[in-house]
Amino acid sequence: MSDKPTENVVPVTEAPKDAPAAEGEKGPSKGALKKAAKEKEKAEKAAKRKAEEEAQKKAADANDISKEDYGELPMLGSQPYVPPTEKVPRVNLAEVAEEYKDTSKMDEAGGPQIVFRGIVENARAQGAKLTFITFRQGLDTIQAVVAESETLSRQMVKFAGKIPAESVVLVHGLVKKPKELVKSTTIQHLELHVKKLFVVAKADSQLPMQVTDAERPIPGDGEEEKTEDDGRPIVTLNTRLNNRVIDLRGKHNTAIFTIKDGVIALFQEFLRSKKFVGVNSPRLLGAPSEGGASVFEVKYFNTKAFLAQSPQLYKQMLIASRFERVMEVGPIFRAENSNTARHLTEFTGLDMEMAFEEDYHEVVGLLEELMLYIFNGLRTRYGRETDLVRSIYQVEEFKLPEAGKVPRLPFSEGVQMLRDDGVEIGDFDDLSTPDEKRLGALVLKKYGTDFYVLDKYPLAIRPFYTMPSAETQAAYDPKNPNAGTSNSYDFFMRGQEIMSGAQRIHDAAFLEKRMRECVTPVDPKSEGLRDYVNAFRYGCPPHAGGGIGLERIVMLWLGLPNVRLASLFPRDPSRLSP
Amino acid sequence: MSDKPTENVVPVTEAPKDAPAAEGEKGPSKGALKKAAKEKEKAEKAAKRKAEEEAQKKAADANDISKEDYGELPMLGSQPYVPPTEKVPRVNLAEVAEEYKDTSKMDEAGGPQIVFRGIVENARAQGAKLTFITFRQGLDTIQAVVAESETLSRQMVKFAGKIPAESVVLVHGLVKKPKELVKSTTIQHLELHVKKLFVVAKADSQLPMQVTDAERPIPGDGEEEKTEDDGRPIVTLNTRLNNRVIDLRGKHNTAIFTIKDGVIALFQEFLRSKKFVGVNSPRLLGAPSEGGASVFEVKYFNTKAFLAQSPQLYKQMLIASRFERVMEVGPIFRAENSNTARHLTEFTGLDMEMAFEEDYHEVVGLLEELMLYIFNGLRTRYGRETDLVRSIYQVEEFKLPEAGKVPRLPFSEGVQMLRDDGVEIGDFDDLSTPDEKRLGALVLKKYGTDFYVLDKYPLAIRPFYTMPSAETQAAYDPKNPNAGTSNSYDFFMRGQEIMSGAQRIHDAAFLEKRMRECVTPVDPKSEGLRDYVNAFRYGCPPHAGGGIGLERIVMLWLGLPNVRLASLFPRDPSRLSP
Repeated sequence: MSDKPTENVVPVTEAPKDAPAAEGEKGPSKGALKKAAKEKEKAEKAAKRKAEEEAQKKAADANDISKEDYGELPMLGSQPYVPPTEKVPRVNLAEVAEEYKDTSKMDEAGGPQIVFRGIVENARAQGAKLTFITFRQGLDTIQAVVAESETLSRQMVKFAGKIPAESVVLVHGLVKKPKELVKSTTIQHLELHVKKLFVVAKADSQLPMQVTDAERPIPGDGEEEKTEDDGRPIVTLNTRLNNRVIDLRGKHNTAIFTIKDGVIALFQEFLRSKKFVGVNSPRLLGAPSEGGASVFEVKYFNTKAFLAQSPQLYKQMLIASRFERVMEVGPIFRAENSNTARHLTEFTGLDMEMAFEEDYHEVVGLLEELMLYIFNGLRTRYGRETDLVRSIYQVEEFKLPEAGKVPRLPFSEGVQMLRDDGVEIGDFDDLSTPDEKRLGALVLKKYGTDFYVLDKYPLAIRPFYTMPSAETQAAYDPKNPNAGTSNSYDFFMRGQEIMSGAQRIHDAAFLEKRMRECVTPVDPKSEGLRDYVNAFRYGCPPHAGGGIGLERIVMLWLGLPNVRLASLFPRDPSRLSP
Repeated sequence: MSDKPTENVVPVTEAPKDAPAAEGEKGPSKGALKKAAKEKEKAEKAAKRKAEEEAQKKAADANDISKEDYGELPMLGSQPYVPPTEKVPRVNLAEVAEEYKDTSKMDEAGGPQIVFRGIVENARAQGAKLTFITFRQGLDTIQAVVAESETLSRQMVKFAGKIPAESVVLVHGLVKKPKELVKSTTIQHLELHVKKLFVVAKADSQLPMQVTDAERPIPGDGEEEKTEDDGRPIVTLNTRLNNRVIDLRGKHNTAIFTIKDGVIALFQEFLRSKKFVGVNSPRLLGAPSEGGASVFEVKYFNTKAFLAQSPQLYKQMLIASRFERVMEVGPIFRAENSNTARHLTEFTGLDMEMAFEEDYHEVVGLLEELMLYIFNGLRTRYGRETDLVRSIYQVEEFKLPEAGKVPRLPFSEGVQMLRDDGVEIGDFDDLSTPDEKRLGALVLKKYGTDFYVLDKYPLAIRPFYTMPSAETQAAYDPKNPNAGTSNSYDFFMRGQEIMSGAQRIHDAAFLEKRMRECVTPVDPKSEGLRDYVNAFRYGCPPHAGGGIGLERIVMLWLGLPNVRLASLFPRDPSRLSP
C-alpha cells in the first residue's frame, strides 16, 4: 500500500525524571543503601520481563500474517515524510454512505476498499476471532468487523479489541451490505470489513468522563449526579464543563456549534447582501461608557481600561463617520454577578446599525427579515443538527410566522394581553422574566408563532441614547421628562428576549438634554462620552439598530435548558476555565 | 411631492439651564438686583430682535416661490410619521451614474428627477443667483447647481450657499449632461440641477478638522503639522486619531475599511468552502497561558482574569474535541509597551487550525491557497478601493506569484540569501525586522513576488507547542534540547510577517517534555495549562494552523505607513480613546 506507515514502532518518549534529592554533605545512609539495592533489583526484574515480552512478541510476529497491517503508528512528525508514490485519498464516511445508498447491486465481495481517519467510539472483542468496532467521523458512525481469516491474524483481532475508546485511528476496509440494517450506528445500510488498522493517537484507557454520558441531557436545577434506570450516570453540567474537551465530543455538541456558526454565517450573508460593512470596534475603552456597574476593569500599563459592554457607542460613531450600514460579530463582556441559566460574563454579540430614510420601522422591518432569514436557513441547512439536539432535549418545534407576518405589537398591547390574562402590571413597568415568558405563550396562542416583536417601549426603561417617540416629545413635561414611550423594540423567541434595539438620538443638543434628564443621568462632558456626543455635531443621519445575543438564539432555537450549553468554554462569575 | 416634509420648522431644543445658585438665607444683595435688571433688559432686547426677524422672515416667505422646497427639517423622530401616499424611492448615486452612462441621447431637459440623501462636501455661492454644491454619497461625488429661475427663488439659492460642509441633506434634482466633463467629482459625465433641498442633520460650521485634510498622507515619522505648497495643512496622525469620526469620513478611509471587511469575508468564504467551522473561544482566561509578560490583567469579581493573547490553546483543544477544522475572527490583546508603526495593543486575529492526514505541508499548502484567494479577491472585488488608497500613499502594485507557485523557502535558504547579500547571521538566529525586509526585497528580485513563505524555523525561537522536525527529533541531544529546526513557518508580505504557524505537538507526554525543555520552560501542571495538556491524553489527531494579523494584511496590501491606519479606533500604550 502506498500510504503504509514507514515503521510500526511507537517512539518511547520518556518523561523527564525528577532530579535525585540532594543527599547533603555526608555519604548515603544505611536506609538509602538498602533502598538503592531494592530499586536495582526491581529494575533488573523489569528489564528481564521486558526482554521476555519482546522475545515472545518477536516469535508471535514471525507467525503473524497481519503484522504489517496493524499497530500503533509513531507520532506523526517524528519520522521524515516520504510522499507516497501512489496517493490513496482518504474518504469521508458521510460521502461514502451517500455514494453507496443503493446496496441492492452490491455483491458478496462488497463495495470498494476505503481508507479513512476516524475515532474508535468503542471496540468490543467477541471471543478470540472477532472484534466489533464503532468508528466515528463527524456526526457519522459506522459498524466495523475485524474477523480472523486466512489473511487476518488472531493477533490483529486481539489488538483491535483493545484499542481504547476515543483513540484516533487510520482504517482500511471493505464496504459491505450488512445482513440486516445496523441499528446502533448512523450509517445503517453499510458495514465495514477491516483490512488494516493503525492507531494514530491513542487515548488514555481511563477518561475522566465518557462521551456517551455527555450525550444525555444535563440534570435539572438542584439535581445531583445520579444513575438512570439503565445504570448509566447522569453527569452534572459542572462536571461536563470541567471536562469540556471530552464533553464537546458528544455529537449533539458538534451539532450545537455547527448551528452556532451557521447563525453567524446567515447573519453576515443576509446583511452583506444588504450592503452592510463588517467592522471591528475596540474592546478596550478608556472609560466605562454605559454605566459603571457591570464593567470589567483592566490594568492598562500605568492606567486603567475597561472592557466593552457593547459596541453601541462605536456603532453609532461609525454611522456618524459615513458608514451607512455596519455590522459586528464580537465578544461582549458583562460583569454581572448573576449565576443564572441565562447569564454569561462573556458572550458573542451580533450587532448592526444603519442609517434610515424616513421612519425607524424601516430598520425594524429589515431586522425581522434578518431573523426570518436566519431561522429559515437553520431549518433548511441545519435540519439534521437541529433534530439531533432536539431529540436529546425533547423540545417543541420552533414555530415561525409566515414571511412578512411577524407580529409587531406595541408594548401597550403586550401589557393589555397580560392584564387580560390576570397579571397586574403598570403601563410603563418593565416586564419581568416570568411576564415575558407568559406573554410569549399568549402570543403563541393568538398568532401561532414563537417569534415576535414588542415595539414602543417605555422611555424610562431604555438607555439615554434612545429616541423618545414623537408623541412623547410633543407632550414633553420638564417635571416628568421620562414619561411616555420611545422608538425602541425588543425581539423575542419562545418568550425570551434575544435582541434589543432602537432609533438613536442623532442630534447632539437633544442627546445632551436626554443624558442629563434620563433616569440615571450621565455627564455628556465625561471622558468616555465626550467624543461620542461630539460625533453628532458633525452631521449624522437618522439611524437605528440592534444587538443580538448569539448564545441566546442558539439556546432558544434548540430549546437548551442553559445558555452555557451554547458557549464552547462558558464564562460566569465562578468559571474562568478551561 | 409625496415625501415632502410635514413641516419645515426646526424644533428648538433648549439646553437645560443650570439651577440658580442658592442665595443663602438672606434676601438678594444690591449687586444681584442690578444683575437681574440687566438680564431682564437683555432678554427683552433678544425677544424684540427675534420678533423682528420672524416678521421679516414671514414677509420674505410670502414672496418666496420656493418656500416649500427648502429648509431645515425637524429632527427625524420628533414628528409623527405619516407614510406617503406615493412612495418616491431614494436612489444611489453610483447606480444613477451607471444607468445614465450614455448621455448622448440626453436632451436639454435632462434625465429623470431623482431623490437622494447625501452629504454636502462643500457649497459655494457664486453671487446671489447661483450656488454650486458637491454632494457625496459613499465613494461618489456629483456636482450640483442651485440656480435662480422662475420656479426657484433667490432665497433658496442663498440658503443652499450657506449649508455647512458635512451636513446631511435630502435632495431632489434633475440629472443633466454637463457642458463639459466635471473634473472635480468622481461622477464626471452628469450634473444635478437641484429642485428641492432640505437639511436633515446640520453640521457645526466650525469642525475640529477638515475631511479634505484627512484625505492627504500622514506626515512621516518625526514630521510635525505643516503646510503644503498649496497652503493646505498636513495634519498629524495624532490629530486625526483624536478626531477619528471626521477623519474616517475621508474617502480613503471608507475604502480601507471596506477592504478590511473584504479580507474577513474572503477568509471566511474560502475556509467555509473547505469545511472549516467558525468558533468563538474565550477572551477571559483564568491564568495567563502564553507567557505572562505581555498579558493584560482584569479584575474579575473577587479574583483575577487575563485577556487572551491568542486563541492558540483553545483552537488546539477544539481539534482535540473533534472539530476537524476551525477558524476564528476575534480581538487579540497584547500588553507590549511598543510605540512603533507596527504594534497595536488590540488587533483582529484571523486564526485557523486543522487536523491533517500525513504531513503538515498539507496545511501550509491550504494556507497559501487561502492567501492567494484573499489577494485575488481584493484585486477583482476591491480594485476601486485599492487604487483609491494607493493613489494617496503612492505604493507599488502588490506583486503576486502564479497560482501554486508561492516560493516556500526553508529558513536556512533565507539565511543563505541574506549572507550572500552581506548580512552576518547565525544558522539559528531569529530574523530582525530589517533583515526580514531585506530578505523580502531579495525574494522579490529573485522570484518576482511580494508574497512568500519561510519554512522550518529554528526550534529555539518558536513556542513550546511547536513540533520539532523529524531530523531534529532523530538527532535529539538532552544537553541541547532546543537545537535544530521545527515544523513551523511564517508568511510574508512585502518583507513583513503577516502569519505565524506550525504543526503542534498532539502527544501529551511529548508536549510535557517540550514544555519543560523549551527555552522559556513552562509548567504543564500549572492552572492555565493543565486542561490544555490533558486534552492530548484523550486521542487528538495531528494538526497544524496559523494566526494572521488582519490589520497587517490591510496595511501591507495597501502600503500604508502605519498599522493604526488599518484600525478604526486604534489602541496603543498611550491611546484608549475615542
